[in-house]
Amino acid sequence: MKLYHSSGSPNSRRVRILIAEKHLDIELVPVDLGTKEQLSDAYRAVNPRLVVPALMLDDGAVIGEVPAIMRYLDEAYPKLPLLGITPKEKALVFMWERRAELEGFAAVMEGVRNAAAGLKGRAIAGPHSYEQIPALVERSKARVANFYSDFEARLTEAEFVAGDRYSAADITTLVTIDFATRAFAMPVPDESIALKRWYRGVSARPSATA
Amino acid sequence: MKLYHSSGSPNSRRVRILIAEKHLDIELVPVDLGTKEQLSDAYRAVNPRLVVPALMLDDGAVIGEVPAIMRYLDEAYPKLPLLGITPKEKALVFMWERRAELEGFAAVMEGVRNAAAGLKGRAIAGPHSYEQIPALVERSKARVANFYSDFEARLTEAEFVAGDRYSAADITTLVTIDFATRAFAMPVPDESIALKRWYRGVSARPSATA
Repeated sequence: MKLYHSSGSPNSRRVRILIAEKHLDIELVPVDLGTKEQLSDAYRAVNPRLVVPALMLDDGAVIGEVPAIMRYLDEAYPKLPLLGITPKEKALVFMWERRAELEGFAAVMEGVRNAAAGLKGRAIAGPHSYEQIPALVERSKARVANFYSDFEARLTEAEFVAGDRYSAADITTLVTIDFATRAFAMPVPDESIALKRWYRGVSARPSATA
Repeated sequence: MKLYHSSGSPNSRRVRILIAEKHLDIELVPVDLGTKEQLSDAYRAVNPRLVVPALMLDDGAVIGEVPAIMRYLDEAYPKLPLLGITPKEKALVFMWERRAELEGFAAVMEGVRNAAAGLKGRAIAGPHSYEQIPALVERSKARVANFYSDFEARLTEAEFVAGDRYSAADITTLVTIDFATRAFAMPVPDESIALKRWYRGVSARPSATA
């Protein structure tokens, strides 16, 4: 099994942290986004969606989409579960991981892709070209601010994003915050006491360096 | 267990079709989007995200987000599985269901929400207000056209979206096509032979009327 990834890609980091938390030993194959290797014919043969990360199984099957890769690894290696155990837990972890992704992570990504000079004509990742829409940049920042406020409320009532235990929902929330900090200079606001408490805790786990 | 839904909501229909395919008997509680009942205090107590559908379990826990609801129902009622059985199948169904959603369904929804006069200030569903961005409307239609072309290629090589068997990925693809047809007058193009063959088949299943 091999994970095609990029060291600077926040989506790749979501999977690398999950792998570290589960103590899995998976070969990492770097894809150089700097030279647009993800758009090469060689990589197209791996993942026709032309994005990282992608997980290639030993039989050659390729799983794309971060939450699907996370799901595969948690099902195939059930020790140290990060996506819940009972049907109810699984659904709630999934719901919170998805909320972190669609309300937080995707907002940062949309802002970055619609702003960066190097991404003209590439406002959406993948095989198709879309022009940038500058109005999305400010809207993305507003969405990140609302995400912080909503997740502050959540972490006032729960120890971790999906409840009592560290899960994949914490991974995506952590990566979102680090991505927003780097891309938009938007770290967790000082007044978000619960979110800062949580952030210090998950950032101190060894997996956070992955 | 109760599903809060709206008869006209394409997201609700995704869950209703899954329920019909699995022959489950779940109480349906209508939420009237026409009178903005989803923004009421009563509904806020059910789902603070203020969107339908939402599944309330018998213990009062509420699961939001369509793929999380689908996951719950398939895990809690494993007969007639629609999200795969082995870890690999589960990951591939998830990947294709998600691609149908993010590349197809979400594109139609973004176009509708940024165009409709009745949705000014409500360009993104949920508790926060965002102004419409008219440039997104044309981009959404371009994304739907690319979605049709990508899924035509997929259905040339596979009988169903995720492979050999009908799955949740087919449900989301079907609902996307009917939504694009109604909202944008964009049915499957005549030249998409494989996609039309597949569409006729899944539309003829009794679940399609759900």
